[in-house]
Amino acid sequence: MTEPDVVALAINTIRTLSIDAIQRANSGHPGLPMGAAPMAYALWQRHLVVDPAAPSWPDRDRFVLSAGHGSMLLYSLLHLAGFDLPMAELQAFRQWGSKTPGHPEFHLTAGVESTTGPLGQGHANAVGMAIAERFAAQLWNRPGHTVVDHYTYALISDGDVVEGVAMEAASLAGHLGLGKLICLWDDNRITLDGPASLSMSEDVGARYAALGWQVLRVEDGDRDVDAIDRAIAAAKADAARPTLICVRTTIGFGSPKKAGSSSAHGSPLGKDEVAATKRALGWDPEAHFLVPDAVRAHFAAIAARGAAARADWETRFAAWRAAFPELAAQYDTAQRGELPAGWADGLPTWKPGEQVATRVASGKCMVHLAAKVPWLLGGDADLGGSTKTIVPGGDWSVAGGGRNLRFGIREHAMGAIVNGMAYHGGVRGFAATFFVFSDYMRPAVRLAALNHLPAIYVWTHDSIGVGEDGPTHQPIEHLAALRAMPNLWVIRPCDAHETARAWQAALARTDGPVALVLSRQDLPVVAPVDAPVTRGGYVLADSEGAPQVILIATGSEVQVALAARDRLAADGVRARVVSLPCWEQFVAQDAAYRDAVLPPAVRARVAVEAGVSYGWGELVGLDGKVVGLDRYGASAPGEVLMEKLGLTADAVVAAARASLAAAAR
Amino acid sequence: MTEPDVVALAINTIRTLSIDAIQRANSGHPGLPMGAAPMAYALWQRHLVVDPAAPSWPDRDRFVLSAGHGSMLLYSLLHLAGFDLPMAELQAFRQWGSKTPGHPEFHLTAGVESTTGPLGQGHANAVGMAIAERFAAQLWNRPGHTVVDHYTYALISDGDVVEGVAMEAASLAGHLGLGKLICLWDDNRITLDGPASLSMSEDVGARYAALGWQVLRVEDGDRDVDAIDRAIAAAKADAARPTLICVRTTIGFGSPKKAGSSSAHGSPLGKDEVAATKRALGWDPEAHFLVPDAVRAHFAAIAARGAAARADWETRFAAWRAAFPELAAQYDTAQRGELPAGWADGLPTWKPGEQVATRVASGKCMVHLAAKVPWLLGGDADLGGSTKTIVPGGDWSVAGGGRNLRFGIREHAMGAIVNGMAYHGGVRGFAATFFVFSDYMRPAVRLAALNHLPAIYVWTHDSIGVGEDGPTHQPIEHLAALRAMPNLWVIRPCDAHETARAWQAALARTDGPVALVLSRQDLPVVAPVDAPVTRGGYVLADSEGAPQVILIATGSEVQVALAARDRLAADGVRARVVSLPCWEQFVAQDAAYRDAVLPPAVRARVAVEAGVSYGWGELVGLDGKVVGLDRYGASAPGEVLMEKLGLTADAVVAAARASLAAAAR
Repeated sequence: MTEPDVVALAINTIRTLSIDAIQRANSGHPGLPMGAAPMAYALWQRHLVVDPAAPSWPDRDRFVLSAGHGSMLLYSLLHLAGFDLPMAELQAFRQWGSKTPGHPEFHLTAGVESTTGPLGQGHANAVGMAIAERFAAQLWNRPGHTVVDHYTYALISDGDVVEGVAMEAASLAGHLGLGKLICLWDDNRITLDGPASLSMSEDVGARYAALGWQVLRVEDGDRDVDAIDRAIAAAKADAARPTLICVRTTIGFGSPKKAGSSSAHGSPLGKDEVAATKRALGWDPEAHFLVPDAVRAHFAAIAARGAAARADWETRFAAWRAAFPELAAQYDTAQRGELPAGWADGLPTWKPGEQVATRVASGKCMVHLAAKVPWLLGGDADLGGSTKTIVPGGDWSVAGGGRNLRFGIREHAMGAIVNGMAYHGGVRGFAATFFVFSDYMRPAVRLAALNHLPAIYVWTHDSIGVGEDGPTHQPIEHLAALRAMPNLWVIRPCDAHETARAWQAALARTDGPVALVLSRQDLPVVAPVDAPVTRGGYVLADSEGAPQVILIATGSEVQVALAARDRLAADGVRARVVSLPCWEQFVAQDAAYRDAVLPPAVRARVAVEAGVSYGWGELVGLDGKVVGLDRYGASAPGEVLMEKLGLTADAVVAAARASLAAAAR
Repeated sequence: MTEPDVVALAINTIRTLSIDAIQRANSGHPGLPMGAAPMAYALWQRHLVVDPAAPSWPDRDRFVLSAGHGSMLLYSLLHLAGFDLPMAELQAFRQWGSKTPGHPEFHLTAGVESTTGPLGQGHANAVGMAIAERFAAQLWNRPGHTVVDHYTYALISDGDVVEGVAMEAASLAGHLGLGKLICLWDDNRITLDGPASLSMSEDVGARYAALGWQVLRVEDGDRDVDAIDRAIAAAKADAARPTLICVRTTIGFGSPKKAGSSSAHGSPLGKDEVAATKRALGWDPEAHFLVPDAVRAHFAAIAARGAAARADWETRFAAWRAAFPELAAQYDTAQRGELPAGWADGLPTWKPGEQVATRVASGKCMVHLAAKVPWLLGGDADLGGSTKTIVPGGDWSVAGGGRNLRFGIREHAMGAIVNGMAYHGGVRGFAATFFVFSDYMRPAVRLAALNHLPAIYVWTHDSIGVGEDGPTHQPIEHLAALRAMPNLWVIRPCDAHETARAWQAALARTDGPVALVLSRQDLPVVAPVDAPVTRGGYVLADSEGAPQVILIATGSEVQVALAARDRLAADGVRARVVSLPCWEQFVAQDAAYRDAVLPPAVRARVAVEAGVSYGWGELVGLDGKVVGLDRYGASAPGEVLMEKLGLTADAVVAAARASLAAAAR
């Protein structure tokens, strides 16, 4: 078989595998795999350096299918390249228990580098991966020894280029000059509802050029594999700028009735049209899930190239390890997602009663931790002076330098970029902004939680305690809204000591993200230095004798609960104060611990938190009361707001009495 | 006084009022008002058509200070132009009960057109206002009669140009060719943490040009008022494209020590520097909150121009009303935010037991409602075929046409644009996408709720019932996360009838947003046609005799609860089923109603919902159980997922027995 013949056959194999799987599932998006198969072929067959036998090899190239709805394209590629994704998995596309879900899932399928589907996220993840690669290169490479040196590729769609998160990330990528980031835009001019021109008429290439990208064009992305190949080579040759390759394609290429139309986008072609498409592609219409032998042999080149590259890397890596054994030990630790020995030793402590904003305490902890963990890299969305997250050593750039990643006023991309760093591995990322702007990051936070990514969020200015900035800057519903998110830990420490323990818990976590929710205002140190934050909640101050009422509080309201307890005690009412910095960890404790903290028989309970009451019913029950805030805040000094809006010891005392009465009925 | 002298004096009055108020509050952002005062002056004094005596006059120009942190600029302008914002309010900047909060609030202060502060939102709101203006013009203007014809201006900052929501909105504005939208970019090259170059190096003007905008530049925005004036005139002259005017300014202009630096951005100048600045501006350093008489007289031109314009409009409007009395009656109704008589008559009904997805039922309702309410305008983020929100009549464009606004794959901007339409008034806006992507819109939804904007969200594909698309597309925590948001109604109807009543409740609401959360999958019609959705919850199926256990369910899980009730009845257990489509409205009912639905004595309670259990404790108490989903979903057919993940009648029966046992202890 001639080379052109096998190329065409290989591309059509990707196409037919994809449409067969989608038809069998009777669900899925055939249009993208059919149109983007040539660019995927050119990239995977001729450029991408991956080793299917070692899918987690750290120095592999990364490939992100940002247009996750085209998942069958990726599954076809993984199968054909020899990853552990047998034909049976392709045939179980979108079925319970398969490794081929509707959209690619990082935590499920070897070779999937990023969970995509929510548009724009993968594009931004790729920016994070490219940052992680450059950071890791600075951290580990030494003169004469290159152990980190790979590309990040992303296949992006129309949706990916117009989503805000992607635009933000592309803007930062241009600013940073991430030369090893290469995005192929599947410019098929069709979206789910019809022609892209229904809602898009911008000059996408000119926009990326304005952002500082190299912009290349391939006019016939349906057929001209060599042009795609050359464009990728040109992209790699520009070390100073990220590259966008605009590839003109036909969605649903090959389908006689549906090519070039939105009917090919989001639904199976239908049995007859699958057959007609196969005929048009010169394929046996009766063959299903067919991989011609010549094609399988052809694609073996990917594994061969990857294996050779990895063998070469192993040699270089061994030489590096021999030359820099301590560095290599650090590298191993970082790759495993672990931390250096003694990383938490020497975290700051404070004097009881000392007044410290938890954001300030956090900042002190970070200075310590950044010094102990050289692969901690993160930053803020232009609020570093307020979030106290700037660590010594200056700003990070691709030219090297310090540890502060200036994300700019791009909260959503910040979240998605930190995810990309976590997907990449070997680096611990964090992101900081005001807590109220966690909303801007929320889709990225969800993906971190879903994918068990150990991202850390430093969200400061955590309540109406923000004060004068007013309701647009005062979180009210955010604690509840984030506690609702599975696998996210939300930690709101009550003082500096709980803050230090919270940082410890956050860095120690490996299977999901952790949010640190911190005060703008000073708070007295009231918790013991070894506050059991990892248990989620604990008895901070007990009553003398069995408690009649339990006061549960978080963050800045713990001091309010303590004051209420004293007043109740003066009136002969025995109140216990429970500090509950982390809801998720508390409810995950065994029943014995939970019942010890919140004895089931004590049904007079009051929750105190400067946020919505929604959610607290689970802990306080039908007889309980919540001193919260079921309204938006206002603009005034923080202490005025706490008083005016009723976050006071008086209110807690009154609620305790009301709950005692209700429980006694 | 010469004209140039009074111009300089007027601009310095804006500057000094701003720094005085910020210094007095000891909180605020002086840099922007000082740098942007010349462009604000040029716009307000020479172009903006507003009548301070009638701040809600519908045909006024709109001005959005997207950079809401510069609020004192806006308050100074409102005061000087003669709006009802006396000096005492400026002196009460950022204090409890004032009309001058830290960031401008639409619902609080006459003349504030949009609540801003979260960056990017105001920019996108302005796009919505410009859309509303063009839509209203098409709706009400008639040949020879122009009653809608005004500009929308926005003052935007560095943050506004890089935030994704703004980029998305700007992209759509360029696509639509919103020629009456004019944005002035305060290009001061400084953000809170330092020079903008820390994180920004794109060519902003080139980017907007790529989006289809006219881009103009003013090199000396600190002094060259005439150049700004000419640029605004040129912007108005281009009817086919929105315009970005890039105005180079110096942040904190006039401050000897802080001008041009981030130290002028977010903190008061300090007493000494306020005095030094006044001296540098030729101002009396001892004078505070000074408005020279000549300046007050000078600014009277704004009110005079506005009053004349309004008088002219009143004349034209009277002629139009005389010529088109029915149209004018409609106009009045729309302006009041009311609905035409009989708008809800004839909404579709269904047969009991009929199988209808609530998204499909919603679509049928929308066709009816769009016909009855001509000023309903909205659309989807490229999912109209799935959300069933496309109404007859074709797509909307500035050239006229139908009623479907194609937002493109820009969920966040969609939310903010619908807010802008609501701020503008006279149009009811809606936005549709998959429920899981409500996360992308969340910052805009919050602002709708905070500002009492009657936006409507149609969020379909509301649970794991989505099926094969998998966990990235399956909402789990979203109901809880949105219920937590004050002043948002979240309605999840259990069938077609509740869906019709939900639409009725949504359109009837005037003081806040409403979310309709709808199923992808078919659901049997089980509710009465007059289901009391506005009470939030009601007894859908009672036990024979007093209930022993209450089953509370929403949406697609109501049928599961009904099936469980039957099984329990067969075993002699009396179970009541409560359908709870709207949590917020249920908890707002009086205690008598709530207690009638959920008798306090019945503590055996089970909540059933295909979402997180978080939140349900408030209604089911410490003895209750939740059949929910405290994990992410999976990719498989929807009915398989419901079974595998335990959303079954069997699970509800077991939970009911467990709760009966717990309550009996």
